[in-house]
Amino acid sequence: MNSQSIGIFDSGIGGLTVLKALKAALPYENFIYLGDTARLPYGTKSPETVADYALNANAFLVEQGIKALVIACNTATAHGLPALINHFAPLPIIGVIEPGIAAACALPNTGPIVVMATESTVEGHAYRDVLAAFAPERTIIEWPCSLWVALAEAGWCSGDLVEQIIAKSLAPLLEKLTQKPSCFLLGCTHFPVLEQSIQRVVGDVLVINPAERVAKETKWLLSHLGALNTGHQPGQVRFFATDGPARFSRLASVFLDENLVPEQIEWVHLAHPFSKGQIKAG
Amino acid sequence: MNSQSIGIFDSGIGGLTVLKALKAALPYENFIYLGDTARLPYGTKSPETVADYALNANAFLVEQGIKALVIACNTATAHGLPALINHFAPLPIIGVIEPGIAAACALPNTGPIVVMATESTVEGHAYRDVLAAFAPERTIIEWPCSLWVALAEAGWCSGDLVEQIIAKSLAPLLEKLTQKPSCFLLGCTHFPVLEQSIQRVVGDVLVINPAERVAKETKWLLSHLGALNTGHQPGQVRFFATDGPARFSRLASVFLDENLVPEQIEWVHLAHPFSKGQIKAG
Repeated sequence: MNSQSIGIFDSGIGGLTVLKALKAALPYENFIYLGDTARLPYGTKSPETVADYALNANAFLVEQGIKALVIACNTATAHGLPALINHFAPLPIIGVIEPGIAAACALPNTGPIVVMATESTVEGHAYRDVLAAFAPERTIIEWPCSLWVALAEAGWCSGDLVEQIIAKSLAPLLEKLTQKPSCFLLGCTHFPVLEQSIQRVVGDVLVINPAERVAKETKWLLSHLGALNTGHQPGQVRFFATDGPARFSRLASVFLDENLVPEQIEWVHLAHPFSKGQIKAG
Repeated sequence: MNSQSIGIFDSGIGGLTVLKALKAALPYENFIYLGDTARLPYGTKSPETVADYALNANAFLVEQGIKALVIACNTATAHGLPALINHFAPLPIIGVIEPGIAAACALPNTGPIVVMATESTVEGHAYRDVLAAFAPERTIIEWPCSLWVALAEAGWCSGDLVEQIIAKSLAPLLEKLTQKPSCFLLGCTHFPVLEQSIQRVVGDVLVINPAERVAKETKWLLSHLGALNTGHQPGQVRFFATDGPARFSRLASVFLDENLVPEQIEWVHLAHPFSKGQIKAG
């Protein structure tokens, strides 16, 4: 029996959709969630900056004595996972990209996998690179849908207009598809709150939320390591954020489907990795 | 004749709409623009964090030897202007809120002034407070439209769907209005790129872009101080950003109406004001 917490990291509140899946799969585990809300969003920032922020913020989670770390943020996974694994070894660290690709590849059809993500994730081609490592014979289309982050944060999750916005975002993609996709993969942890609307727009092609696979892989890994909490008390969650708790608590109802009061979120001030003050030519 | 530059600060690229107005009004002046893109957006962050970031980032601009500073960001104006004025006195510093209120109050009608802004600006009530200081008999409605930031950054500036999105954002406001507004004030420097679409949605009520008034006040102030550049060489603009230049240069075509190549944007790494690593209870 191991009652240490599982750490969950996101740039903000989108990772709460992953926490929701983890809580469902691992109801007796304790969790510590950290949202780097003072520096969100990561999805519009450069790979170097994202990696710096992720290392810096996750040092705080690791200091809390966690037994595993879930990077519930596509951008941080794409640009930070190798550095995080190197830096915090031997802590088990699970990202969201490989589980998403694994879930997509497990489907019984072989059309192109469409990944919908922020422009940073798309430009970094992390999904393409992971697919190339695991299933090089498969094809992938990475499609930017940054606007959907704001849509989700506005709580505009369903209705005609939301579906029209989703359809407009996907229209240039759907026009150029020459083959039916095998699935649409939600490559941003904000997007699960739009899942039903996206499913209505794309019709009979399955929309995949990688969070369920992330939860399964986390459970499998902890089980394998003998690190599951074998007690039967409901797990607890502690929430930390690097900026004020008001907005975090308000959006929790959208992303976690739970009401949090601001007092449940602890405000943590992080020392910043940039300290040289130098100018680097662009 | 004073060929020193005018500094322009924004959390990201929205302030380019203010630069555009300044360049038109002051064609012989030199400008230095700084976008704090590594920490954008400010509009979702707490007042304390915004003030810290603004002080930290503007120290870089002040070090360049500017003769005036325009805070081309509503959130930074709302939460940072007093601290900036105190810290960098006697440098002339112009925000975007007072000019917007002044432009609204100069209209010959007295209905409520509607300010459309990010949720942080709305919650901080900076427009209400400035109006109370200058024209306490007037009424104001501050209305959150955070989604429009993403809309502008996606380059979705016109068309039926954009107008439907704007209309949906404003519908609960328009329903509860009991009196015709005197104007709709663009309380976020991203929104001028949506100005024509907003104007179509609100019909015969004037939409005001405060940037033109900001430019006039800057010109008046420099003239008053004898600090205008009286030469007749076209002014130059230097661009700095705290994150990588790729996205900045791409969005410049939307917000500045000019094409910038990434090489025109200098990447500056700022030392960060947080250095205590302490936990502050939320």
